[in-house]
Amino acid sequence: MDEDLSHVRRMWADDRASRELGMRAVTIETDHAVVTMRVTDSMVKGHDIAHGGFIFTLADSTFALVCNSRGALTVAAGADITFVAAARRGDVLVAEGIQRAAYGRSGLTDVTVIRESDGALVAEFRGRSRSLSSGAARA
Amino acid sequence: MDEDLSHVRRMWADDRASRELGMRAVTIETDHAVVTMRVTDSMVKGHDIAHGGFIFTLADSTFALVCNSRGALTVAAGADITFVAAARRGDVLVAEGIQRAAYGRSGLTDVTVIRESDGALVAEFRGRSRSLSSGAARA
Amino acid sequence: MDEDLSHVRRMWADDRASRELGMRAVTIETDHAVVTMRVTDSMVKGHDIAHGGFIFTLADSTFALVCNSRGALTVAAGADITFVAAARRGDVLVAEGIQRAAYGRSGLTDVTVIRESDGALVAEFRGRSRSLSSGAARA
Amino acid sequence: MDEDLSHVRRMWADDRASRELGMRAVTIETDHAVVTMRVTDSMVKGHDIAHGGFIFTLADSTFALVCNSRGALTVAAGADITFVAAARRGDVLVAEGIQRAAYGRSGLTDVTVIRESDGALVAEFRGRSRSLSSGAARA
Repeated sequence: MDEDLSHVRRMWADDRASRELGMRAVTIETDHAVVTMRVTDSMVKGHDIAHGGFIFTLADSTFALVCNSRGALTVAAGADITFVAAARRGDVLVAEGIQRAAYGRSGLTDVTVIRESDGALVAEFRGRSRSLSSGAARA
Repeated sequence: MDEDLSHVRRMWADDRASRELGMRAVTIETDHAVVTMRVTDSMVKGHDIAHGGFIFTLADSTFALVCNSRGALTVAAGADITFVAAARRGDVLVAEGIQRAAYGRSGLTDVTVIRESDGALVAEFRGRSRSLSSGAARA
Repeated sequence: MDEDLSHVRRMWADDRASRELGMRAVTIETDHAVVTMRVTDSMVKGHDIAHGGFIFTLADSTFALVCNSRGALTVAAGADITFVAAARRGDVLVAEGIQRAAYGRSGLTDVTVIRESDGALVAEFRGRSRSLSSGAARA
Repeated sequence: MDEDLSHVRRMWADDRASRELGMRAVTIETDHAVVTMRVTDSMVKGHDIAHGGFIFTLADSTFALVCNSRGALTVAAGADITFVAAARRGDVLVAEGIQRAAYGRSGLTDVTVIRESDGALVAEFRGRSRSLSSGAARA
């Protein structure tokens, strides 16, 4: 991958929220990213079940890496998530995002969240993005 | 409102994640709830903009109160969120959820998130729920 | 309602697809529309159940009236539909659309589809729109 | 593919709506289907642009083939569609559906709609299904 992704790495470094949740960006490539996060004590509701909001947040952070990878400053316009199985305290979650479509200033990114230990599917997310600049606007 | 909502209040008391994010359940009624949350330093990405995941999480917590208000144990099957405007560090967000439809074991709940200071719309959320028990199963 | 809606009425007159499906625009107002359609023999799958695509199409036509009512040429960027109950051959369906949010060139419109005979809920639809012009561009 | 798909072929034969729209099921396999449809005069709004409802209907028919392919009677619970580019009168559209997830009685199916002549992306659809029987209920 010869493309320069330093702008995305900088964006990630500035993302205090994702960092404080313990997320790790394992892979950052053009149109593709993998992020992991452990379900901590602070992320659970009753019965040690992870609050769905944190699963969404993991997917949303992954989505941001993917949709910004081509250089234009891009924001989330919206997203849909389907919760497939509960995640539990201590589970390590792995989110993999792939750009599905890009057209004009719009884009769609699919993110799949699985449990690392056994690969079980936890959630499917589809994010809708809008670029604010017209691309190639890499700092 | 003469309905007994003690089961939902107990569920909320058990929700450590929402509590640690500083959420306050201002209103809990049958098919209706209002929850507030301040955007803290830990919830922002670069430029003091709130990570969308926390806005979703606020809406999702509100959704849980609404869809569980009639007594059957109910979980989020999925949700769609549209981000209308950015929230910033220090903003107090107000999420109001109303049940839109209930049929069989399924339900739809709409949650609107606004900024408290000026009422500006921040996000619109629609949650899809599934009851695990057949209702009236109030503990 | 003193606003001039002639551009929307013209758009509706040009919409051959909606007309051939037998849709009738009962109400056309700013940010609000009601359209009816009878489920014909050509709209059913096995067992006299309406194909969900026609329910979506009715909601989508209603959405177009709503999101174009303020004059800017506006298109559907996407939509989500939840099917609540089956519609059957001969049922008259009533779709009512209301604009829920408008921001920049984007908008959200909620459309509820019911069965006319008993008011039973058939589907809930949320459409996402984008204006191509910057408003006020009424022909 | 040694699986018996006669029940899906029968379902398709009973689907009068899809047939009258000129749809052709080109491929029917387990968890996978391809359906084509030409945009006719009756499917256009002004300016020879296809009404989005017919694009949804094509995707929805493809979704039904996919989510019923394993034998349990399965219905659409809902769907989200993103419209990427307009289709025009005379265009032949090709919808390809693939099951993305199956869990309990629920499932997710992704359908991509392209224009046959040049492969241009027209729409992305994600359908949510629910089985009414517990599988293996093949007639």
